Amino acid sequence: MSAAKLKTALMGATGYAGFELAKLLLRHPKLSMPLFLSRGGEAAGHPLEDHYPELRGAASCPLEPFSSELLKSRGIDVLFLATPHELSRELVPEVLAHGIRIVDLSGAWRLKLDSNRVVYGFEDQDAAVAAELDRTAVYGLPELHREEVRGAKLVANPGCYATSVIVALAPLMRSGLVDRAHGVVCDCKSGVSGAGKKPTQKTHFVEAADNFSAYSVFGHRHTGEILEQAGLNADELIFTPHLLPIPRGILSTIYVGLTKPATPSEIEAVFSEFYGGAQWVRIFGHGKLPQIQYSLRTNYCDVGFQLAPDGKRLIVVSCLDNLMKGAAGQALQNLNVMYGWSEKEGF
Amino acid sequence: MSAAKLKTALMGATGYAGFELAKLLLRHPKLSMPLFLSRGGEAAGHPLEDHYPELRGAASCPLEPFSSELLKSRGIDVLFLATPHELSRELVPEVLAHGIRIVDLSGAWRLKLDSNRVVYGFEDQDAAVAAELDRTAVYGLPELHREEVRGAKLVANPGCYATSVIVALAPLMRSGLVDRAHGVVCDCKSGVSGAGKKPTQKTHFVEAADNFSAYSVFGHRHTGEILEQAGLNADELIFTPHLLPIPRGILSTIYVGLTKPATPSEIEAVFSEFYGGAQWVRIFGHGKLPQIQYSLRTNYCDVGFQLAPDGKRLIVVSCLDNLMKGAAGQALQNLNVMYGWSEKEGF
Amino acid sequence: MSAAKLKTALMGATGYAGFELAKLLLRHPKLSMPLFLSRGGEAAGHPLEDHYPELRGAASCPLEPFSSELLKSRGIDVLFLATPHELSRELVPEVLAHGIRIVDLSGAWRLKLDSNRVVYGFEDQDAAVAAELDRTAVYGLPELHREEVRGAKLVANPGCYATSVIVALAPLMRSGLVDRAHGVVCDCKSGVSGAGKKPTQKTHFVEAADNFSAYSVFGHRHTGEILEQAGLNADELIFTPHLLPIPRGILSTIYVGLTKPATPSEIEAVFSEFYGGAQWVRIFGHGKLPQIQYSLRTNYCDVGFQLAPDGKRLIVVSCLDNLMKGAAGQALQNLNVMYGWSEKEGF
Amino acid sequence: MSAAKLKTALMGATGYAGFELAKLLLRHPKLSMPLFLSRGGEAAGHPLEDHYPELRGAASCPLEPFSSELLKSRGIDVLFLATPHELSRELVPEVLAHGIRIVDLSGAWRLKLDSNRVVYGFEDQDAAVAAELDRTAVYGLPELHREEVRGAKLVANPGCYATSVIVALAPLMRSGLVDRAHGVVCDCKSGVSGAGKKPTQKTHFVEAADNFSAYSVFGHRHTGEILEQAGLNADELIFTPHLLPIPRGILSTIYVGLTKPATPSEIEAVFSEFYGGAQWVRIFGHGKLPQIQYSLRTNYCDVGFQLAPDGKRLIVVSCLDNLMKGAAGQALQNLNVMYGWSEKEGF
Repeated sequence: MSAAKLKTALMGATGYAGFELAKLLLRHPKLSMPLFLSRGGEAAGHPLEDHYPELRGAASCPLEPFSSELLKSRGIDVLFLATPHELSRELVPEVLAHGIRIVDLSGAWRLKLDSNRVVYGFEDQDAAVAAELDRTAVYGLPELHREEVRGAKLVANPGCYATSVIVALAPLMRSGLVDRAHGVVCDCKSGVSGAGKKPTQKTHFVEAADNFSAYSVFGHRHTGEILEQAGLNADELIFTPHLLPIPRGILSTIYVGLTKPATPSEIEAVFSEFYGGAQWVRIFGHGKLPQIQYSLRTNYCDVGFQLAPDGKRLIVVSCLDNLMKGAAGQALQNLNVMYGWSEKEGF
Repeated sequence: MSAAKLKTALMGATGYAGFELAKLLLRHPKLSMPLFLSRGGEAAGHPLEDHYPELRGAASCPLEPFSSELLKSRGIDVLFLATPHELSRELVPEVLAHGIRIVDLSGAWRLKLDSNRVVYGFEDQDAAVAAELDRTAVYGLPELHREEVRGAKLVANPGCYATSVIVALAPLMRSGLVDRAHGVVCDCKSGVSGAGKKPTQKTHFVEAADNFSAYSVFGHRHTGEILEQAGLNADELIFTPHLLPIPRGILSTIYVGLTKPATPSEIEAVFSEFYGGAQWVRIFGHGKLPQIQYSLRTNYCDVGFQLAPDGKRLIVVSCLDNLMKGAAGQALQNLNVMYGWSEKEGF
Repeated sequence: MSAAKLKTALMGATGYAGFELAKLLLRHPKLSMPLFLSRGGEAAGHPLEDHYPELRGAASCPLEPFSSELLKSRGIDVLFLATPHELSRELVPEVLAHGIRIVDLSGAWRLKLDSNRVVYGFEDQDAAVAAELDRTAVYGLPELHREEVRGAKLVANPGCYATSVIVALAPLMRSGLVDRAHGVVCDCKSGVSGAGKKPTQKTHFVEAADNFSAYSVFGHRHTGEILEQAGLNADELIFTPHLLPIPRGILSTIYVGLTKPATPSEIEAVFSEFYGGAQWVRIFGHGKLPQIQYSLRTNYCDVGFQLAPDGKRLIVVSCLDNLMKGAAGQALQNLNVMYGWSEKEGF
Repeated sequence: MSAAKLKTALMGATGYAGFELAKLLLRHPKLSMPLFLSRGGEAAGHPLEDHYPELRGAASCPLEPFSSELLKSRGIDVLFLATPHELSRELVPEVLAHGIRIVDLSGAWRLKLDSNRVVYGFEDQDAAVAAELDRTAVYGLPELHREEVRGAKLVANPGCYATSVIVALAPLMRSGLVDRAHGVVCDCKSGVSGAGKKPTQKTHFVEAADNFSAYSVFGHRHTGEILEQAGLNADELIFTPHLLPIPRGILSTIYVGLTKPATPSEIEAVFSEFYGGAQWVRIFGHGKLPQIQYSLRTNYCDVGFQLAPDGKRLIVVSCLDNLMKGAAGQALQNLNVMYGWSEKEGF
């Protein structure tokens, strides 16, 4: 009576984004029980609920050690990678060779231009295969590349900061209203889960609480994604990440100079037309700025804006949950697009 | 043997800035026990420690109802006002008439230009006296106006955001390096105590925690102070306040375009020369950005910066404690300057 | 093809528990779009998403002013009340008279004994009707009263602290292992949303953050519920609430003396037998204590325990989300029980 | 004209308690610039301000590698140890042999009874010397052992939890009012700095924020101190630590059964008499319970209480800052006692 369910696997469920994705996969009505994988080491052999007691009773099968043969023998249709990018560069070619589609949450395949890609310093085993994948991998921001995602073998799931900024900038760039010579300033703030699960001094509660700081100024890896997807040159963009004392959520305050004075309704039209049918982008009216709480634990990217009285300077505020629309939620949205399901399925 | 101690009074000790100032006044070795005043109502008659049990044993005298005669009869030398600006406009003329010096923490006397002052909408009883005071009041940022503060009858203690931005911008503006046509963007973030002690939906723990938001975009009252003190025109400045989920602290990220490429050491020299002898401004080196925790509960304003690789775009990060260098601490620093004491006295 | 959907109404959706319930009702697959009601005043006429922008696009119908006639004319099957208890005492009789079932999240109908009820000081319009309702209202903790809930006209949804304590104590009390003469100590800690949405000094971010305090010592209203449901006398129970600097979540640390030494497996059996089929109570093993994060944003009540080496002193730790199992989630669970659906439906 | 200043050294200034002590030593008017020591490794050679940029300008001398000869050659009078207890056991004998007095913040010398000391599992190089020091070390809670501290060569600075509990319990135990057979329950909550500066999963911001948990139930090392200093047997005490999502502060809720009904004024008298002249203990009246914020960043231990209506059950609430009265502040208080200065000197 009901269609056979899709078989998915997830590698890297013990990290924050991976765990969030595990919870989503466990709830999605069109998926069978996902296969949770680990690289071996201490995680393997223990069920996911040992790492996350909040899953008690929901994920009692042990994590199995990764092998592409295992994926094949279990008939896995789609593999999600929530792994370091070095590992993704290594695993993706062999998994694709088995005809398994991949959504990779790491930064491994997001960039087209060598000039941007240089910050990752990839050391690929087979450079030709890797270069081909760099070309064919689809940047998985469905609001910009829905058609390509639908047919993609390899989806490069965007970065959290990058999603927040690109969703805000792409419509404006296309509109031709942006004064590129003036430059775009993206002052971005993220919750601590964006720094990963591995404990460090920076993520120690006593250092992060009651604090706030800028980091990776003029040097964050998401810069390349933003440049490529928004169509800006390096000297036209400033992107400054900051660490917020909250577990999750991103707010980006984006400063854009316009080529000529605009009215609020003109700006509103730019966004509304671009995101007309989008289910996971919400446009707030002029002067109605989203806050981080609004989209927390949802897959929404919320966008609001305000024009200066002179109409020539525009502030756009963009919010999302870095673990949802900024990672796991977007990965699931990509899955929905890949299989022609409603983009809200499973949320 | 020891010199007679200075007699101070504080009106408005029950608010956050007033309470912080009360604690400082109680510790300052050159001051006698301060006189705590209130407008009457429920605060009067209760000692300050009833409002702030952490003062238990230190402030057991009841708050007395304000009157300028009381100030006179007690021989008060200096009155601190931590009151709403409307009340300050009302009280200051009569207190000054008694020969008592005033440090006013409100926004009542900070602005010179009517165009900026319009946002406050003052309704002065005696317009001529008020206008005279507008002219003669000294903007109490000692690093910029030390000499005027020394002789001032009325010190207008600067706003918290304004202090953070002006300390960062003033040296750059004077250096002539700033490309004013390009405009200056100040993306500022403040802890919740900046919103005052009166409980509102915005300051409710459940709304403010795990959240972050922009507010008063293109419309915050501190804009005028920044324009006047930094010497910018309204269309050359963007100042965007945000609410941080921490009790106190401000971090401002300031984006400046330069008229020509600069080197880190040139920028460092601009700050070092300006703040050579300053005791409450700390200049961090290039690429060493201050964090909010560094200056928390101190009177420091910390400034760091980073140049883009092209040397033409500069990011300055400025941090301070909004209740200290942004309010009470600066008020005490002004007192020290007014009486020729070390600026670090009493801290 | 599909069964007609149940029609629900919710009065008081603008408070924290009411809002949480609104989100649950909007998602539940067996319910039609709920009717949101308000008492009039400023809330009426505005859609719920004006109060909670995170609902943008999901709740755009305006709140309508409450009247029992409106409920009748719309064919409402069940009314949820997330109102002050005084208002519940007033509204419930007339709504029940229309044959509409009610789940009341307030404390209005939870208590049987006058001695406990005195703390509420009800002033009922029709004392006889009220007394009858006091007798027939069902205490809506399904794990204790599943059958009564199924047929109930009026369900008194339990208090948040009370749920956390009763779930932990009820099995132990029934087991006969508890040394009642020794007394039971319940040291309970709750997040700030438990104090309600109305802003007060106590819930101001600056007062609640970086703080922790006990309150209502020997005088909290939930005491009566705990006594009645656990079967304790007033001098056998100490219940001490504390305010945690987190938005939501309750952890209760419960100290019980036993009549004779017990083993961990004996205690585990007591809980396992009592909660054998329960879907929303999770029993953690000996020495595995739940934390607040585990059940946050779920309807679970998690229970763990640890025995002293002498086997005669037992510590039980119980966690839940005060807005879910402690309020809205439990209300929805009660609805599921009332209509014979799976207790997990809609979560 | 002024007396020669005392020379102090501090080993372990990079940890949280050590850093707090460093700041206190730098401010104390009767001390010369302290000597900061490290064990070598990466800390040595860098000034303290590299580890704590908030000290910028105040602590620019590099940390020097520890040796007892260095202490001797610099004429150090008192050494503070903020080191792991194993290291303290190793260093103390050789330093004392040079005639240098020691205040040790670790748990190395706090316990008299072998039965309690077993939890530390010390492996002493010279067992006889160590045993002698175990006997002669003074437990540095000045409110209980002021005279011994005055003459002590080796002061064992108490644990943070232990201080909070002992200050509350000692007067009651001495009064004879406590029903020991009934047992004492200490439900204690501490901020995250109590878990140390080394980053772990438990202290990761994402795990600790919005969370609360019990830990080390029936097994925390401070238990022995409490037993010895309060004069309780192991089966008369339950001590349960919890982790609060705040950087610092401890609140202990202590449940005591009384041998006969008491009145509030009797209890108040018990505390007032015991702490009559104490400068760092504040007794709040009946029903006036201290909160963590009241004593934060001070050296106070605040104590309040409330009697049950039956007068036979007593709740005592005790608050302190775990890095001040619970560690560094108490160490400085001990120094003040050792040299006959005011106990408030330097605070």
